[in-house]
Amino acid sequence: MEGEKLMKKVDIEALFIGPKSENQKFFKETLNFMIDEHTHWRRDFHPDDKAAISLHDQYRKDFVETLQRTQEVLLELSSKLRTSSIPWFSPRYLGHMNSDTLMVSNLAYMATLLYNPNNCAYEASPVTTALEIEAGRDLAQMLGYDPEKAWGHITSGGTVANYEAVWVARNLKSIPLAIKEVKPKLVAGLSDWQLLNMPVKKILDLLDHIKAAGLMDQVRDHSVKGMGVNDGQLGKLLVPQSKHLCWIKAADILGIGKNNLVSVQVDDNFRTDLKHLKDTIDRLVKKKVPILGVMSVVGSTEEGAVDKVHEVVKLRDKYEKEGISFYLHVDAAYGGYSRTAFLDEDNKFIPYHRLKTKLTKECGFERKIDWPPREVYNAFKAMSHADSITIDPHKMGYVPYAAGAVVMKDRRILDLITYFAAYIFEGGDNNPMLLGAYILEGSKAGATAASVWAAHRVVPLNITGYGKLIAKGIKGAISFHRSLGAQKPFAVDGRRFIVMPLTKPDFNIVDFAFNEVGNTSLSKMNDLNQKLYEQCSYSSGPVYKDDFITSKTSLDTDSYGNAPLKFVEKLGITKYEWEKTKSVYVLRSCVLTPFLDRHSTYDEYWANFMNTMKSKLDVIIKNGWK
Amino acid sequence: MEGEKLMKKVDIEALFIGPKSENQKFFKETLNFMIDEHTHWRRDFHPDDKAAISLHDQYRKDFVETLQRTQEVLLELSSKLRTSSIPWFSPRYLGHMNSDTLMVSNLAYMATLLYNPNNCAYEASPVTTALEIEAGRDLAQMLGYDPEKAWGHITSGGTVANYEAVWVARNLKSIPLAIKEVKPKLVAGLSDWQLLNMPVKKILDLLDHIKAAGLMDQVRDHSVKGMGVNDGQLGKLLVPQSKHLCWIKAADILGIGKNNLVSVQVDDNFRTDLKHLKDTIDRLVKKKVPILGVMSVVGSTEEGAVDKVHEVVKLRDKYEKEGISFYLHVDAAYGGYSRTAFLDEDNKFIPYHRLKTKLTKECGFERKIDWPPREVYNAFKAMSHADSITIDPHKMGYVPYAAGAVVMKDRRILDLITYFAAYIFEGGDNNPMLLGAYILEGSKAGATAASVWAAHRVVPLNITGYGKLIAKGIKGAISFHRSLGAQKPFAVDGRRFIVMPLTKPDFNIVDFAFNEVGNTSLSKMNDLNQKLYEQCSYSSGPVYKDDFITSKTSLDTDSYGNAPLKFVEKLGITKYEWEKTKSVYVLRSCVLTPFLDRHSTYDEYWANFMNTMKSKLDVIIKNGWK
Repeated sequence: MEGEKLMKKVDIEALFIGPKSENQKFFKETLNFMIDEHTHWRRDFHPDDKAAISLHDQYRKDFVETLQRTQEVLLELSSKLRTSSIPWFSPRYLGHMNSDTLMVSNLAYMATLLYNPNNCAYEASPVTTALEIEAGRDLAQMLGYDPEKAWGHITSGGTVANYEAVWVARNLKSIPLAIKEVKPKLVAGLSDWQLLNMPVKKILDLLDHIKAAGLMDQVRDHSVKGMGVNDGQLGKLLVPQSKHLCWIKAADILGIGKNNLVSVQVDDNFRTDLKHLKDTIDRLVKKKVPILGVMSVVGSTEEGAVDKVHEVVKLRDKYEKEGISFYLHVDAAYGGYSRTAFLDEDNKFIPYHRLKTKLTKECGFERKIDWPPREVYNAFKAMSHADSITIDPHKMGYVPYAAGAVVMKDRRILDLITYFAAYIFEGGDNNPMLLGAYILEGSKAGATAASVWAAHRVVPLNITGYGKLIAKGIKGAISFHRSLGAQKPFAVDGRRFIVMPLTKPDFNIVDFAFNEVGNTSLSKMNDLNQKLYEQCSYSSGPVYKDDFITSKTSLDTDSYGNAPLKFVEKLGITKYEWEKTKSVYVLRSCVLTPFLDRHSTYDEYWANFMNTMKSKLDVIIKNGWK
Repeated sequence: MEGEKLMKKVDIEALFIGPKSENQKFFKETLNFMIDEHTHWRRDFHPDDKAAISLHDQYRKDFVETLQRTQEVLLELSSKLRTSSIPWFSPRYLGHMNSDTLMVSNLAYMATLLYNPNNCAYEASPVTTALEIEAGRDLAQMLGYDPEKAWGHITSGGTVANYEAVWVARNLKSIPLAIKEVKPKLVAGLSDWQLLNMPVKKILDLLDHIKAAGLMDQVRDHSVKGMGVNDGQLGKLLVPQSKHLCWIKAADILGIGKNNLVSVQVDDNFRTDLKHLKDTIDRLVKKKVPILGVMSVVGSTEEGAVDKVHEVVKLRDKYEKEGISFYLHVDAAYGGYSRTAFLDEDNKFIPYHRLKTKLTKECGFERKIDWPPREVYNAFKAMSHADSITIDPHKMGYVPYAAGAVVMKDRRILDLITYFAAYIFEGGDNNPMLLGAYILEGSKAGATAASVWAAHRVVPLNITGYGKLIAKGIKGAISFHRSLGAQKPFAVDGRRFIVMPLTKPDFNIVDFAFNEVGNTSLSKMNDLNQKLYEQCSYSSGPVYKDDFITSKTSLDTDSYGNAPLKFVEKLGITKYEWEKTKSVYVLRSCVLTPFLDRHSTYDEYWANFMNTMKSKLDVIIKNGWK
């Protein structure tokens, strides 16, 4: 697009309404323009048609009262919203994965809503189905897939995107056995074990033969798709121990069963422990239990940890040589868009030795912002080897809810989930399409697609656009982490406290906890941090007056083993205490806002934060905390 | 609410922007007011905080260029939208289940989007989670459930709502066998067959004992939830032959398998054939195959047919006496809101003998609008006996996409799908809730909840509100059906044509087809109607200039048996032809617009329609159709 070429530099400050509604004039003017475009479009459709609602109607008592009622309800709504909504827009909010959302996405959503397209069917959304396919293609390219062969689309969120990946993996796993039933020649000489360990690409290649032979429907009828799940036959799904609850839901919904999920431990950095992953696979293989799939996480929801995807890919390569294979999905619902920080203006993956210079130049990284570590870099680079990736525009895409996405490396995979006879891509992927036939969901708002598409058009999916925006958050997170680590013991009401950050962020989440100096009770420390959370969240009433708003999480041995031990030890908690209490309560800050240092300097931000926490501690002490 | 009491009469004309943007002034003013409320809310959060975006920033070259780029993209979007969107708002559109959407819902959505709540978690949506629960409660009450015991929530659409119902039915069916494993005493003396035929309420009562005994987790681990689906053990899912494709997807996704779907034939009115349903159940029971569930449809997507739910309920009662039971779900995604036409101003179901008077008084039904037939009335009345109901606000709720809903009769059912230990409803249903733990989806827009909630506040869910609005569409559909039936053969270019409606609408869908007088070839007739569709849809280019826009469907023997035979015979097609071609192509008009007779009189609307169709036939003939 011409505009894209003309505009060399995205200005982050021009992307949002802003913490002080700084860009409200632009927002309102553009919105009103879009509304006028719509209302005139209505008037210009058959200008010869008379009005359906006459002026006479509009002066009727019932008419006036109905408008009045409409306003009353909306005022009530606005009052509720302003009373209890969370001020995501402010740098004072460092909690969940939220911040301000892009003006262009909000405007695109609002304008498109009036046309009310439904992307379930092309006929109901000739415009926005095309935009969804374009947006999916954008993501495929950004993630390192070949956009001519990949397939991406928008879902209502990461949870549904992950379901779709499990759906694909499950159906795929059952295909070789189905082929054995329908056309045994094609897999002659292979044992069931071999059939259950066939690499993804090989299965899809075999399906090409099946399609050519006109046997696709028969094979599908003999697969899980037709027969239903059969008592764990397809094996185990390996998920990180720090598992998002959506995996438990996925195993339930997809008929796999929670008992067929296997947790893989995390290491001290809260990333999947590679050795344990390998041991788990070996143990299953020894028992002749197939691996249905391995789920890696890029940006865990609680710590922002990035699994070493490159090592998992290497591991799979190794196993494939030994006749073992599995589906590999990357849940990058949270972290996915961060890959843009590694792509140069031509969308090429930047060599590691040039990255720091680039980040300094484009994103203002000072020398002390020592990000990314090599293994995080390698992990992002290796994502393109996964069979599918979940990536949420409504998280690091700065787009309003609800917009998740899933991208599959090889679009032939769609044949496994559609009820159509064969896929209908012809020539390219901008063909009219009945999306509802290729996705888990049915009806879906075309406005969402417009919102994501528009974001990608204004903010390039590389270091000049999203990369820069996200890097500002990372820079804030690294600074915040460093300040927490450097904070000396401090006094409140004559008592002394310390604060300590969890691991160094893989990108933009910082977990941390306070303790009183000398306190060795973990449950008491947990109580302190819970009380701090309550003081900094909706649980002590609407947050509109709050000085700092955050979120929290609990890291327990069930989900994390001993990963948090080092951290609690730094806070003066013994191993014995940890093994007794088994859970540490931490405050959790996702730094999405690019405005952490914009009100003032970062140092002032930090001073303000510490003052706030001190005054909260003061309240807690005055309330009788001992 | 006071306003609700004050406003006795909803004025339909005051609910929409209108086909000629008649209410644009109100819409824009109210929207701008809501936006101002939001932007000032931002400014008033810590007024002492300095701006993050300075005036200096705003004059920067990059800043200006970024705003320019934002506008360029939005203008491109607006251009695309106006070029190819479908003018749902116009009475000239009688195609899919679309029309204008409520102003209050559009405004509520747009305003709430700026606060960007996520109803997955209460913490991210203190306002809109509460609104979602209220909206679910509204629907439960309207559908005849006890709102203190029922559970309703918003989904992304009817497809996902139906998945959730199948999910519940599937997990429920596996519970008695799980209890047998965990606490055999509780089901002592019952055979597996009896366990697989336990009525829904009895299973939930047993679960209360299990919960009290602290065995819930164990039972769940032994149910499908923990074990996964086991090769069809839970039986067959009975769906209408006219099945919506979502059932095929549901069977696949939920791991049941398409082969475990059983189609039940439809009768001449396209409603589930009760005798065939009974025969099917008998046949399965004889083979000792359990019935996982029966799906009834209130408002089939292609014909708007309403299954005789009351007869299905009666049938289940009969079977339960014989020791056979099954889950009953009603898919009222399309028809659900029509139940409001049967409820008086106190939300009581109106006696049949008073209904006509009510419809005449409230909805302007003339004597010739002979709706509803007794069996449609009974079906709507009996809906409250179903275990769950799908009902889509984005269809007959006149709310923008994407807003479906599912309502369950007995909220104890939630224990079957949550990963929590026990459900957390306490006292009432307005408690803060982590919705994500009780629904299929994860992240979801709180704006959708606001949109549905606001609609219900302005438009009462009875004959004074939605009932009146929907009845206007039904009135239009019945008139349209009668006109089609009364239309005499007519000439175009010296050739004579006829038109014939399919069955009389159960509520607001009219299917119809044209034929040339004397033509006895069904494939030729199909070709004619396909060409007419192409002339009246996006397939002949953007529809903005079109005089009439419609949709189509094909009724084939696979899905409908011989149900369409009488219809094609009336068009001069023999039974032999039907059996040869096996499919009839019809035009399909969903009459949601309340404005069919508002531009002018209905008679003028009809004359305009026929003139349009004649000119389309003329084009088709001139293009060489023989």
